Amino acid sequence: MSPGVMTMICGVARWEPNARGRLEEAALELFAERGFEQTTVAEIAERAGLTKRTFFRYFADKREVLFGAGKAFQQAFVDSLAEAPADAAPLDAVAVSLFAGARILQDRREFARRRQAVIAANPELQERELIKLASIAAALAAGLRARGVAEPAASLAAEAGIAVFRVAFERWVAEEAERELAALIREGLHELRTVCA
Amino acid sequence: MSPGVMTMICGVARWEPNARGRLEEAALELFAERGFEQTTVAEIAERAGLTKRTFFRYFADKREVLFGAGKAFQQAFVDSLAEAPADAAPLDAVAVSLFAGARILQDRREFARRRQAVIAANPELQERELIKLASIAAALAAGLRARGVAEPAASLAAEAGIAVFRVAFERWVAEEAERELAALIREGLHELRTVCA
Repeated sequence: MSPGVMTMICGVARWEPNARGRLEEAALELFAERGFEQTTVAEIAERAGLTKRTFFRYFADKREVLFGAGKAFQQAFVDSLAEAPADAAPLDAVAVSLFAGARILQDRREFARRRQAVIAANPELQERELIKLASIAAALAAGLRARGVAEPAASLAAEAGIAVFRVAFERWVAEEAERELAALIREGLHELRTVCA
Repeated sequence: MSPGVMTMICGVARWEPNARGRLEEAALELFAERGFEQTTVAEIAERAGLTKRTFFRYFADKREVLFGAGKAFQQAFVDSLAEAPADAAPLDAVAVSLFAGARILQDRREFARRRQAVIAANPELQERELIKLASIAAALAAGLRARGVAEPAASLAAEAGIAVFRVAFERWVAEEAERELAALIREGLHELRTVCA
């Protein structure tokens, strides 16, 4: 069935220019309904009323729907280190990055929440997520070393910061109360300082 | 060629009772020589002068030569939390676990060093190592919650502690200076406290 025919049958106006958004939406729906493994790219494209060819213009594979933004996200984290004053303490510099990450995600809470449910149901995706976070931590540590922070302080500040981010993120997507991610990060940093005091 | 014949040809007394140790040694040699992917269980057994059947009595597969001790190691980490005084601060309790982990590894530095070189050469093994550490951190956080530590303090103390362990471990296997792992952990905890101060 062609996308055009499907559109007419479903009676839904599917011709918004937002192909990426529609593919994401279709993928998240299908991952939730059938599981990540059981969903094919063809099914995602069909659900979005688009072609496989269009899918592959935006994503290398179905996993990239969930992880494609990772590189830009990591870059934003590292770039924002530069916004911290040159004499900022390591964890204060890392905090600037965490809040920059929070700003990127803040408007995507619903996406983040649905994405998290898909990842939680699939060990392979959980591994990918772990690797992504480890990669961000390594990039942050390198950024701190470039600012003159010595090892092991650079790695420890980066890893502790990413731990704060991860814990805040998990609360953010799980909580009923709709607190801002930045507020949960602030609370996490405070808790970390208390725990280490 | 049977192990017996090979033993005679090589002229090496291979009949020590330490089958596990010999299999580990053979596996590490082969992983270093040929790479992890390119090594088969049959080759490991042959190099050790043992049979595949004996190999499978000790390890489920070749990856378990590198990761088989993980479960016992994690259990030792968690069990040793109980050695911390009931009123110990979360990171102090975690520190007790880290030092217990260090005691287990201290006499296995050469094994740890060679194992690390194999893992560093193989992304899939690096992922497995990350997952193992994340699993230990999650188990430590659960142990802290069981001691009455609230979230997010429990997760943050566990994650920060594991970061200290990982950084200390990497220095321990990389350093020329033969400092003790426990000393590097002590230094890492001090650095973490400084970074978070």
